[in-house]
Amino acid sequence: MGVPPPAPRAPGRSKSLEATPERIRAAAIAAFAEDGYGATTTRSIAQQLGMSGAALYLHYPSKEALLFEISRGGHEEALAVVLESDQPTASPSDRLRRVVHAFAKWQAVNSKLARVLQYELRSLEEGHLQVILTIRRQTSGVLESIITHGYRVGEFRASDPPGALLAISSLCVDTCRWFPSQSYPDAEQVAEFYGDVALRIVGAATMRSANVT
Amino acid sequence: MGVPPPAPRAPGRSKSLEATPERIRAAAIAAFAEDGYGATTTRSIAQQLGMSGAALYLHYPSKEALLFEISRGGHEEALAVVLESDQPTASPSDRLRRVVHAFAKWQAVNSKLARVLQYELRSLEEGHLQVILTIRRQTSGVLESIITHGYRVGEFRASDPPGALLAISSLCVDTCRWFPSQSYPDAEQVAEFYGDVALRIVGAATMRSANVT
Repeated sequence: MGVPPPAPRAPGRSKSLEATPERIRAAAIAAFAEDGYGATTTRSIAQQLGMSGAALYLHYPSKEALLFEISRGGHEEALAVVLESDQPTASPSDRLRRVVHAFAKWQAVNSKLARVLQYELRSLEEGHLQVILTIRRQTSGVLESIITHGYRVGEFRASDPPGALLAISSLCVDTCRWFPSQSYPDAEQVAEFYGDVALRIVGAATMRSANVT
Repeated sequence: MGVPPPAPRAPGRSKSLEATPERIRAAAIAAFAEDGYGATTTRSIAQQLGMSGAALYLHYPSKEALLFEISRGGHEEALAVVLESDQPTASPSDRLRRVVHAFAKWQAVNSKLARVLQYELRSLEEGHLQVILTIRRQTSGVLESIITHGYRVGEFRASDPPGALLAISSLCVDTCRWFPSQSYPDAEQVAEFYGDVALRIVGAATMRSANVT
């Protein structure tokens, strides 16, 4: 999540000084995911880390500031994963499969963090929300450009390209809500299957030929 | 939501006595959806309705009891909608399209309630959670029986029937998170499109022939 390395530990340092921003964020993610953002206080997070409220305040001047940093870090990480997985020179089908695989897998592996990102957007201040929505549009933009290209060259043929983008994004994001399930306990297996599902949703040529049995 | 009709209003009745269980639940749904269950108090709900905490307590002895009744009512309503939409004598494709249509539309139209149902399962007491999970299994069971039947008779041919059930359920449920969107502001339009998407996911025969253009 683009976190600076923890400060070196000085001998005799008190427990509170060991609470790095990274540890604070990890404790906050667990609390927000478990109890909800609204029911969590910065005081309870500080207590859990054995630090004072004032020490936490030095890093995060408010609960919302803490949520914003978690949200920004998480969304940037998801965007990076999506960008890295894309191979713009590959076919639209290959690109779509790879990007959906990476995005769905990230949601599954980071399901606790991802739930905080998805369900606490409403708790962000307006300016912060706009920052996050910009990152989300970039992530969605990767999928959109692949889908648009696939339709333009005739490789994708199902109706309604904007609908396909919506359904594919929704499928990936919702993974954080239900993962793991009894029939899908493995993130790699989900990611693999969702790559196929995405190709079915856009009516990809490869899926069309596979269908004609 | 299977709610008894509001009691007739007696002349001179105080404001607090007008707070029927239905109105209490509606206020709680709004508060839980807006602020989260954890951050809401029964006192704030009572205040909003102009009733005393004691009066609310007569109907709901705890915040969790209130959440449970909301959850049970909402889940029962969704199950009823799904059951009503199913036509067991129709073809698996027709059945799947109709049930997905009804289920997705319910999630869209009732998105605020549906978000409370989906995201506050963790806040239910164990016994109550089991009641809710039983209703959820019944709803999922309708989709599962249609999908299983469709594969058995060869009408559905995509790989992985349990995965198809998972993806289709996930798509429907996640509607409550994003609805309405810029490209999909209309519940009927979402429902119609998701009926098609579901048929693509299972590799339905009708979609296969439509694909071979």
